[in-house]
Amino acid sequence: MREPILLTPGPLTTSLRTKTAMLTDWGSWDARFNVLTASVCADLLAIAHAEAEHVCVPLQGSGTFAVEAAIGNLVPRDGKLLVLVNGAYGKRMARLTEVIGRQVAVYETADDVPAQPAEVAARLAADPAITHVGVIHCETSTGILNPLAEIAQVVAAAGRKLIIDAMSAFGALDVDARTLPFDALIASSNKCLEGVPGMGFVIVRRSALLQSAGNSHSLSMDLHDQYQYMQKTGQWRFTPPTHVVAAFREAIDQYLEEGGQPARLARYSANCQALIAGMQALGLKLFLQPELQAPIIVTFHAPAHPAYEFKRFYEAVRARGFVLYPGKLTEVETFRVGCIGAIDAAEIKQAVAAVADALNELGWAR
Amino acid sequence: MREPILLTPGPLTTSLRTKTAMLTDWGSWDARFNVLTASVCADLLAIAHAEAEHVCVPLQGSGTFAVEAAIGNLVPRDGKLLVLVNGAYGKRMARLTEVIGRQVAVYETADDVPAQPAEVAARLAADPAITHVGVIHCETSTGILNPLAEIAQVVAAAGRKLIIDAMSAFGALDVDARTLPFDALIASSNKCLEGVPGMGFVIVRRSALLQSAGNSHSLSMDLHDQYQYMQKTGQWRFTPPTHVVAAFREAIDQYLEEGGQPARLARYSANCQALIAGMQALGLKLFLQPELQAPIIVTFHAPAHPAYEFKRFYEAVRARGFVLYPGKLTEVETFRVGCIGAIDAAEIKQAVAAVADALNELGWAR
Ligand SMILES: Cc1ncc(COP(=O)(O)O)c(C=O)c1O
Ligand SMILES: Cc1ncc(COP(=O)(O)O)c(C=O)c1O
Repeated sequence: MREPILLTPGPLTTSLRTKTAMLTDWGSWDARFNVLTASVCADLLAIAHAEAEHVCVPLQGSGTFAVEAAIGNLVPRDGKLLVLVNGAYGKRMARLTEVIGRQVAVYETADDVPAQPAEVAARLAADPAITHVGVIHCETSTGILNPLAEIAQVVAAAGRKLIIDAMSAFGALDVDARTLPFDALIASSNKCLEGVPGMGFVIVRRSALLQSAGNSHSLSMDLHDQYQYMQKTGQWRFTPPTHVVAAFREAIDQYLEEGGQPARLARYSANCQALIAGMQALGLKLFLQPELQAPIIVTFHAPAHPAYEFKRFYEAVRARGFVLYPGKLTEVETFRVGCIGAIDAAEIKQAVAAVADALNELGWAR
Repeated sequence: MREPILLTPGPLTTSLRTKTAMLTDWGSWDARFNVLTASVCADLLAIAHAEAEHVCVPLQGSGTFAVEAAIGNLVPRDGKLLVLVNGAYGKRMARLTEVIGRQVAVYETADDVPAQPAEVAARLAADPAITHVGVIHCETSTGILNPLAEIAQVVAAAGRKLIIDAMSAFGALDVDARTLPFDALIASSNKCLEGVPGMGFVIVRRSALLQSAGNSHSLSMDLHDQYQYMQKTGQWRFTPPTHVVAAFREAIDQYLEEGGQPARLARYSANCQALIAGMQALGLKLFLQPELQAPIIVTFHAPAHPAYEFKRFYEAVRARGFVLYPGKLTEVETFRVGCIGAIDAAEIKQAVAAVADALNELGWAR
């Protein structure tokens, strides 16, 4: 069988062109590699329309490392972060803030309820110690979209700073720093920009970054240091994942050729619609209200059969060429299907057919 | 021109077979990927003969992240680390220990002088607050070898714990946990094991790791958490650099096929000898006493010509197909040449010829 298609929210299916960019070894000291890094950062900044007041700082490691780095740098040691939680990644942001020794407050809504801007405003009014607010743009645990623009307005109006985990959304959902006030936006190479995993990046307000010297709880995750060093030398402070960076460059080239954010969003939206229509025709039900659903990853209720087991379902669908993702909810039995990656509606339709066939074989079809 | 050969101490030249392993996208939740991770860790443990009392914990990011993680986990918040410094990586270890809020003492020798075991013993006797000792096996700043076995004995005799940064040595220089007492040994994918950069790993004494719960200053770098999660699920806690792991698996396969550590050391030693002989014939002088030189990376004094500039030298040699490495010493003008990577004496001889030709063109030949 051919390699299966990943319907997972990163690592995901990348194009052969992106992977082929990894067939070269780059010297991390070489001027040509510095140019590669700089061009990637410049393009990421442009995607967020953030050239005026922000800079892009890449970081080795997974996306969580970049989230931790952003918080460790920007939230001062006597600062306090209010985290808006409606899933696992919000919980993780709160947890890591606690671990690194910053004060945290949590505003939690149910998994299927977006953070309410008015409630954010109320919490900020009630607690003057809060200096920063952390929000997950698309909470990948379910695929729910949080109302980023409204939250950003409320946070700015209260004179606080916003930190956005846009890991699973950046590149597909529009983010425009000219109208959306934020101090940091974090994402990684292996989500909607369709690179391979191994690096994250932070689009960070230059003034906030420059003020953050000495804040970091960690040397490896010191974004200020990384930025200063890169400004001075063009190089990453420590060994960069050279092949991952080269693949990311190639992935961004394809992103721009495709038409950038609007085109990426259109493709993923079409994927999402084809997926939902196909799965509903099989009797599988959406977990979220459709208007809360981001076109990134979709949570479905598990087939309503007493013998259902995710592992068996997963293997049966995998044997047909598609990799699903488990649910991340504790109270309801669900599974997830990603709409992102170098795929379009053709693959989505094949996947739906594979799911139908697997359910039939397992005797779990409606 | 063909892609240049990297004579750099990682990222380095990897085999096409290793790079080709990156042409597949892996699901990070997939059981087949878990098997890949587990097999890599098992092989790394075996290379150190550390199966009895240690475990191998991989970590996303560059090697420095893994060093920081090891220290953050193993040195308790009221512990104290004595770092043996004779170059930039020893300095970095001391600095990161300070940044993460642990007490540090430094025993520094000149760049060309190995740490003296008797002096280590004296420092440990004089300061009972020291709980751990950190040493760089091969200090890549110059290529100097520290007397690891003797230092380990002295540290054990004093009842302290040893943390070894073996980044640039592991896989080539022999490390045998059955006779060498250590609590942690840190290395990365992209040095003597000839993988691509993007992950480090820590070979850590199981009992010390299990006692380290709650020590970590960072969530992302919490090795204890990473280990526990991997034990329970087979998965990395956060998105792994899947392509890097797959390439590392392939690189380790080639390592074992080549004959493991003795064969790798023999090839690098031959590279090193060919390099030194060739460069000396051009009148270029070794920085270190030959008996202190590890067969990993060699520091040469810059050509003794008043117009010498590393940048011009570098570009002239690069135009001939070889990437050199700058010196890392502040007091003497030097450059470095790596002996490691998927190359043998043939490439080294070509490189020496390229250096000779470049020096002639630049008018800097002896
Ligand atoms: C919204 C969000 N935040 C954070 C992360 C963590 O990223 P990583 O797994 O790369 O550490 C993810 C990963 O899926 C995510 O979707
Ligand atoms: C001895 C030693 N320690 C630490 C490091 C740091 O590793 P990295 O650059 O991957 O962070 C290196 C890198 O060359 C090294 O040689």
